[in-house]
Amino acid sequence: MSKENIEMLRSGSAVEPVWRFLGIELIEIEEGYAKAGLKLKPEFLNFAGLVHGGIIMTLADSVFGYAVNTLHFPTVACQFNTHLLAPPLPDDKLIAECRVVKSGKRMVMAEISVENQDGKIIAKATGTSIPLERRQKSSND
Amino acid sequence: MSKENIEMLRSGSAVEPVWRFLGIELIEIEEGYAKAGLKLKPEFLNFAGLVHGGIIMTLADSVFGYAVNTLHFPTVACQFNTHLLAPPLPDDKLIAECRVVKSGKRMVMAEISVENQDGKIIAKATGTSIPLERRQKSSND
Amino acid sequence: MSKENIEMLRSGSAVEPVWRFLGIELIEIEEGYAKAGLKLKPEFLNFAGLVHGGIIMTLADSVFGYAVNTLHFPTVACQFNTHLLAPPLPDDKLIAECRVVKSGKRMVMAEISVENQDGKIIAKATGTSIPLERRQKSSND
Amino acid sequence: MSKENIEMLRSGSAVEPVWRFLGIELIEIEEGYAKAGLKLKPEFLNFAGLVHGGIIMTLADSVFGYAVNTLHFPTVACQFNTHLLAPPLPDDKLIAECRVVKSGKRMVMAEISVENQDGKIIAKATGTSIPLERRQKSSND
Repeated sequence: MSKENIEMLRSGSAVEPVWRFLGIELIEIEEGYAKAGLKLKPEFLNFAGLVHGGIIMTLADSVFGYAVNTLHFPTVACQFNTHLLAPPLPDDKLIAECRVVKSGKRMVMAEISVENQDGKIIAKATGTSIPLERRQKSSND
Repeated sequence: MSKENIEMLRSGSAVEPVWRFLGIELIEIEEGYAKAGLKLKPEFLNFAGLVHGGIIMTLADSVFGYAVNTLHFPTVACQFNTHLLAPPLPDDKLIAECRVVKSGKRMVMAEISVENQDGKIIAKATGTSIPLERRQKSSND
Repeated sequence: MSKENIEMLRSGSAVEPVWRFLGIELIEIEEGYAKAGLKLKPEFLNFAGLVHGGIIMTLADSVFGYAVNTLHFPTVACQFNTHLLAPPLPDDKLIAECRVVKSGKRMVMAEISVENQDGKIIAKATGTSIPLERRQKSSND
Repeated sequence: MSKENIEMLRSGSAVEPVWRFLGIELIEIEEGYAKAGLKLKPEFLNFAGLVHGGIIMTLADSVFGYAVNTLHFPTVACQFNTHLLAPPLPDDKLIAECRVVKSGKRMVMAEISVENQDGKIIAKATGTSIPLERRQKSSND
């Protein structure tokens, strides 16, 4: 099932409205893992000239969603905690990676890190996602 | 100082690039409090047709930044935890409110709630922000 | 079902080993709500003479568990975020309250606050808990 | 300064009231790192026979405090987020490790993991700590 999910997610990422709106691009996706990039834009700045933390969280939450959904589809994220560790520069390219730490029947937990193009840590995050129940198909259906 | 900050934030909100990009509008700002709205757009959807959690976090983080900066300016958010409690509908209008719970010299903590236009709770969040030191002006300067 | 759970939790609290070990006492329990107290002891101090943050988290997590289990039993806590806002004094009596914010079939989220005997806020927390599935009893059993 | 802090923390750990009360033992301490163990006891159980999550958080918070204080002393923890990933068995021995991820002048962030004696992951946590300002001693004092 994981392989099918990965293909579906890869295709989905190319047409996902919010990824196109922001410019997020999938770099890699495997079982329990996803990596994506985002070139920062002037539209992401707050009035003090800093990149809005929400944009960083959105990138982090994006790889979280993709990594988790390789294992269980569909899941819904219910909790997401971010540490903003260093402000990116306005024209940085951010790279986010997510690895699933625990994949249970009722809960999935994963760790995310966001770095800039030079490997500087910008943010760390952890999230909780809930697999939705689906009736399993079987030959008796 | 709080009044000056509030005026500066009110003016800033009108020209903040990321708020204009997303459509966030300041509704109210007082000492230790901020409220803002965001009409959801098709660009905010993920490929499953749901509003991306990162957009909700961005709105929540926005009122957090404004509420905290009424008390200490500038501050930098260092931690932000969100619970996504119900998925908004694609054309909901979200309203986020933030109230500062603790405003210390070295740390500010605040609570945020996000509801839709009907008062349904969409998300709850808490955040930590760090006041940056500023040399105090004095008559000897 | 909620009333049965409340009675079971009330009885359980009186014999719970960890509550007796620390001195936690149930003050109130209702549907989606629990309140408990803890008189601080010298054993709870760290070597700097401050009350260990873990003791405060343990009290907060205790009312969280009780409040959530009034609605769904059994549940398991999977995530718990605490803000430590002011250090209690070594002989304070702490009072913790938890209110469930969202009670879903697959996830419960609640908010907790911890104050001292004078109503000073010591900590705020939020938690996520997962209801375990139970086979429903039916007339066919 | 780090070496002095490490020596002070090592000595402190031996007489820390709460560590003696619970049975926490320091295993290793280095710059930005601490590791400690805790043999679980019947006193740590809740009425359902499971180890109370607060005990796991207390162990996690303990290595957090030690790791952070090797770099800045004194610091105060202000935020701590724990994911409880698997319930330990009542007679497990838990081992917690903390590594500082970011050590800034105004904020320190660290990651913690808790495993049982067989290397099974029991919990993951992250925390934020605030260095307190200290007047620097100088020859002019």
